[in-house]
Amino acid sequence: MSAPRVKVGVLGATGAVGQRFVQLLAGHPWFDLAALAASERSAGKCYAEAASWRLDTPIPDAARDLPVLPAEPGLECRVLFSALDAAVAGPIEEAFARAGYAVLSNARNHRMAEDVPLLVPEVNADHTALIAVQKQRRGWKGFIATNPNCSTAALTLALAPLERRFGIKAVVVTTLQAVSGAGYPGTPSLDILGNVVPFIAGEEEKIERETRKILGRRSGDAVTFHPMVVSATTTRVPVVDGHTESVFVSLEQAADLDAVREAFRSFSGPPQALRLPSAPAHPVVLRDEPDRPQPRFDVNLEHGMAALVGRVRPCELMGWKFIVLGHNTIRGAAGAAILNAELLQAQGILAD
Amino acid sequence: MSAPRVKVGVLGATGAVGQRFVQLLAGHPWFDLAALAASERSAGKCYAEAASWRLDTPIPDAARDLPVLPAEPGLECRVLFSALDAAVAGPIEEAFARAGYAVLSNARNHRMAEDVPLLVPEVNADHTALIAVQKQRRGWKGFIATNPNCSTAALTLALAPLERRFGIKAVVVTTLQAVSGAGYPGTPSLDILGNVVPFIAGEEEKIERETRKILGRRSGDAVTFHPMVVSATTTRVPVVDGHTESVFVSLEQAADLDAVREAFRSFSGPPQALRLPSAPAHPVVLRDEPDRPQPRFDVNLEHGMAALVGRVRPCELMGWKFIVLGHNTIRGAAGAAILNAELLQAQGILAD
Amino acid sequence: MSAPRVKVGVLGATGAVGQRFVQLLAGHPWFDLAALAASERSAGKCYAEAASWRLDTPIPDAARDLPVLPAEPGLECRVLFSALDAAVAGPIEEAFARAGYAVLSNARNHRMAEDVPLLVPEVNADHTALIAVQKQRRGWKGFIATNPNCSTAALTLALAPLERRFGIKAVVVTTLQAVSGAGYPGTPSLDILGNVVPFIAGEEEKIERETRKILGRRSGDAVTFHPMVVSATTTRVPVVDGHTESVFVSLEQAADLDAVREAFRSFSGPPQALRLPSAPAHPVVLRDEPDRPQPRFDVNLEHGMAALVGRVRPCELMGWKFIVLGHNTIRGAAGAAILNAELLQAQGILAD
Amino acid sequence: MSAPRVKVGVLGATGAVGQRFVQLLAGHPWFDLAALAASERSAGKCYAEAASWRLDTPIPDAARDLPVLPAEPGLECRVLFSALDAAVAGPIEEAFARAGYAVLSNARNHRMAEDVPLLVPEVNADHTALIAVQKQRRGWKGFIATNPNCSTAALTLALAPLERRFGIKAVVVTTLQAVSGAGYPGTPSLDILGNVVPFIAGEEEKIERETRKILGRRSGDAVTFHPMVVSATTTRVPVVDGHTESVFVSLEQAADLDAVREAFRSFSGPPQALRLPSAPAHPVVLRDEPDRPQPRFDVNLEHGMAALVGRVRPCELMGWKFIVLGHNTIRGAAGAAILNAELLQAQGILAD
Repeated sequence: MSAPRVKVGVLGATGAVGQRFVQLLAGHPWFDLAALAASERSAGKCYAEAASWRLDTPIPDAARDLPVLPAEPGLECRVLFSALDAAVAGPIEEAFARAGYAVLSNARNHRMAEDVPLLVPEVNADHTALIAVQKQRRGWKGFIATNPNCSTAALTLALAPLERRFGIKAVVVTTLQAVSGAGYPGTPSLDILGNVVPFIAGEEEKIERETRKILGRRSGDAVTFHPMVVSATTTRVPVVDGHTESVFVSLEQAADLDAVREAFRSFSGPPQALRLPSAPAHPVVLRDEPDRPQPRFDVNLEHGMAALVGRVRPCELMGWKFIVLGHNTIRGAAGAAILNAELLQAQGILAD
Repeated sequence: MSAPRVKVGVLGATGAVGQRFVQLLAGHPWFDLAALAASERSAGKCYAEAASWRLDTPIPDAARDLPVLPAEPGLECRVLFSALDAAVAGPIEEAFARAGYAVLSNARNHRMAEDVPLLVPEVNADHTALIAVQKQRRGWKGFIATNPNCSTAALTLALAPLERRFGIKAVVVTTLQAVSGAGYPGTPSLDILGNVVPFIAGEEEKIERETRKILGRRSGDAVTFHPMVVSATTTRVPVVDGHTESVFVSLEQAADLDAVREAFRSFSGPPQALRLPSAPAHPVVLRDEPDRPQPRFDVNLEHGMAALVGRVRPCELMGWKFIVLGHNTIRGAAGAAILNAELLQAQGILAD
Repeated sequence: MSAPRVKVGVLGATGAVGQRFVQLLAGHPWFDLAALAASERSAGKCYAEAASWRLDTPIPDAARDLPVLPAEPGLECRVLFSALDAAVAGPIEEAFARAGYAVLSNARNHRMAEDVPLLVPEVNADHTALIAVQKQRRGWKGFIATNPNCSTAALTLALAPLERRFGIKAVVVTTLQAVSGAGYPGTPSLDILGNVVPFIAGEEEKIERETRKILGRRSGDAVTFHPMVVSATTTRVPVVDGHTESVFVSLEQAADLDAVREAFRSFSGPPQALRLPSAPAHPVVLRDEPDRPQPRFDVNLEHGMAALVGRVRPCELMGWKFIVLGHNTIRGAAGAAILNAELLQAQGILAD
Repeated sequence: MSAPRVKVGVLGATGAVGQRFVQLLAGHPWFDLAALAASERSAGKCYAEAASWRLDTPIPDAARDLPVLPAEPGLECRVLFSALDAAVAGPIEEAFARAGYAVLSNARNHRMAEDVPLLVPEVNADHTALIAVQKQRRGWKGFIATNPNCSTAALTLALAPLERRFGIKAVVVTTLQAVSGAGYPGTPSLDILGNVVPFIAGEEEKIERETRKILGRRSGDAVTFHPMVVSATTTRVPVVDGHTESVFVSLEQAADLDAVREAFRSFSGPPQALRLPSAPAHPVVLRDEPDRPQPRFDVNLEHGMAALVGRVRPCELMGWKFIVLGHNTIRGAAGAAILNAELLQAQGILAD
């Protein structure tokens, strides 16, 4: 890659996902962190002051003294990673796209729009074709591309190998989600210490819809949802990082255990072929131990960018069942958006 | 009930479930705690010394100074509640049954024997008919009756109302189980703090088999397994007491939400009709809040003897999905065995 | 006690401490819960709607349908328990006292005023004499009486026996405080899961000052602070209920272990003599096991109204060291204020 | 450093501290991991089989296939790091030292022997002089050198700057220790979830004695204990890694806050001067935020090799108080022993 370095910024930089963007972008080989924006409350402060930094590595020097700017066009960068809250993300992201920025959004607002790609680069890199449609239809100089919600990110990585080889008819999934998925301050400790909260607002619908869009087929300018049925129950558990998912899958074609395992193990996609900087060597890591993956021990494998799959075994009812684990603020949020930007850069779309 | 008081004992009295038996039997209106037995290591000590008491109420005075005896026939009581470890429970329980004791066992060893009832009194009280078969076939003066494993106990209570009204074709369940289910010392803290362990040895098989036996039909002297398919994935989470279960169910007959909810709410059985001392007023408690039941807040409702059901809603794939919560060492272990003994007493079987 | 029943209300009834008041007042033998007040946001709703109930017993029936009223005089009751946040408690409590209500406050605002008693009934029941001074000086028909902050409540109960027998020169204390002490939503789970936060704003100063006022001597109309030096470090730990305190004490007089233990064990005061309904049988419970007290197992002993003391042993530097545990929302908040009200009722001050 | 590479081994390699040794030695610039030994139960297996690996990085490739050997002389290496349990460490370590090995022990057994150095290289590097005494007196070809217990390691690093500048008269310390300090399986989850255990067997005595030996003065062949009084209370909290300590110190000389802070900040010692590979850049890291250090966020700073100090402020009674945090299995165990070995190598003692 001899492409010139690209200036990037972060919208919503002070929150939990915003901090993860800043952490992951520090020292990025292609991107220079040039602008940080947040709500008016933080504007005017330097980043170290404005962000109540809550990651277990120090604030990157490159970000520490950057001013926190208002989230409005005028930021000196080409790409904006959006960690904005869904309550405000919609119009702000549109304003930036209209003004010519490439907006890589982690917010849910535009994910389901038919001209906005919902990307998992190993799975549906061709969905970036929607960007041209979007720019034309909306008359924008820039565009919006999105990554899925945190549970869907790992789930679709784990489903894609099965979809490719055998086809998928139906999925039943129960999630055990980490508290970092709820942002900061997010889940009160009185709610979750020694407890399970068997409900996360809006999460089940996101998993059920987004999975079908990501695994959907593009023909020409449009993406058709995959016809599979997805049914989810989502819960919150006292884990810091890492969403665990108990998955039951019904396949179109017969499969045996070796073939299913081989499908997981050999799975690869454009990020690996293109050697994108944030691409995991193995987007799906198959664990053979009887009791893995586990969030506290395994969530950082492949720098948090892989879906870890374990306990693959037949299910008398659905056909197959297994466990999936993904890092919810890396592969499930900031890392996903950065990988999307890298894909777009490699495809020549970022520089348009 | 003007029945004379019954002397009872506990096998494996010093462990986690044994302690729960002692706690629940203190002050029982029908039963007198007369004998405590445990492994040889504890024998000879008084109970307060031998048990490393780990419940949040004090050791009952009635048990504190009782001697801990060896687990072999000769104990002065009529009924023995067994909290023995499965590694040793088999022959010990048989020896007591042969010697004329009524053995109410929480161990898995005899649960699947065709002449041993696996009881959930609200669900299959008529399965106690197996006891006569057992005594005759084995030539025993006493007998063994069992309660299901901790996850199955709550699950079958929640499935029974649906089975009665609509019939059940299939069940997919993912459990989030508390650490007290693993006994003491049980799960090391290094394994479970801030973590999920997506595997519990043998647990899935128990749920899949025991559920079908409990919901099976008795005709004459035999119980036929229910033909439903049950598929389980079991996990351990950092919760002290209370197994949460994410359940997806496919019914035989069409149902609407009101009918399903009414089935749960109106469910009742022989323990309620007979006003057994440990019977919950409502064996299934239906919660209407969007985010309940939760183990830390709800596990002790109905003194830990109910299955709490919440989030009842349609599932596009299976038909229905909901959350079940049960107290794993009360309704899922000691309380279950005591309720079984109460049922047998009311049926006149204990006094035979 | 043949006193007529007293109508009481709760200010700040929807928060964490407010809920504890409602729980403890339900079924109280002397007091009738007649009024619930909270911020304007809740006003107009019924209590079940307004309070996001977070205790592990159900909302009491007596409170469920009570309307939540604005926190301003006009409430139909004689006594008001205040669980108001310190940000607003000052003027509101004064308005009620001026209007003739007896205000039993858990807020810090008036604790250090020289005419406001800061009460631990077993320790300084005679400090209620300040109430007459207060009414006269301020020209109020009602009055304000306060209970200490949650850590100080248990600490002073544990120090009082030593002060009485041997005199205290100095105290060094490190607290390990539960998250319920921070209210709801309070401590974010991302801050405290698997973590220790070694700072609680304002807490150390409260412990250092309030302890000296509570253990201070009243002469006539005034209370003189005890001259002991108190130095505190306070931390937050991932525990739901129960503040643990590591205490080092320097005594005025020589003591031996038996005498120190006997001082703890025999400690008693007016609540016990007067048989106040919320009085613990033993305000200090001495634990002999080498590793107790522990919050999860012991915090509810004596209905949460005692200070549990353990590990009493000599300290080469300070003289003595030991562990104290107290329930922070019962003895450290709502239960403390209720016991204060009971003391005032028994002293004839409430009915004035 | 152009010294030839040194072959090293680990005794007790399969346990929690043994795993940390293996993790830290993989890729070490001076040492080659050549031998792994453990109890007979593990002997004969390869390391990946024998160790139930419980760190959040994968087993190093260099160790994965090494055979696990019996813990007896004959191992092909020059240096042995001992993570043996104290129940067996004594004679095994002596056997190796007698046979000519340099034994760097984390066990408590020989720490207090007067001819065995108890080393914190930044603090008492000159205590290595005891090794010559030890070899001569015992007629050994090899020797034993030890590092302190996990709490003492961080404590002495934090005390040393104060001792050097101002002299220390007395220390009162309360620890909040992580569960990894208890090894594996160690603390049962039923004991520590949502709980504090206010007792750790033998820990307080170790802190009180070891601190005085480490800060003691060497004159000629002997080390004289420092006369300071140290009084400790130790507790276990639900934290995975990182012991937090609440410290109160009385100094010999008057000091002001700037001087105390400067003493912490400027502290350095032989490991820094010699640029030992495992030496932290700053052995004491002073944190200025009001609520730091915190174990979950800060324990891995300086690769877990520093003592983090925060909340430095005056104490009315003792003079000064502050918080110390140290990584208990790195600076408090395996990392400490490795740093000791590096010091001995730099001093030319390892190659003797």
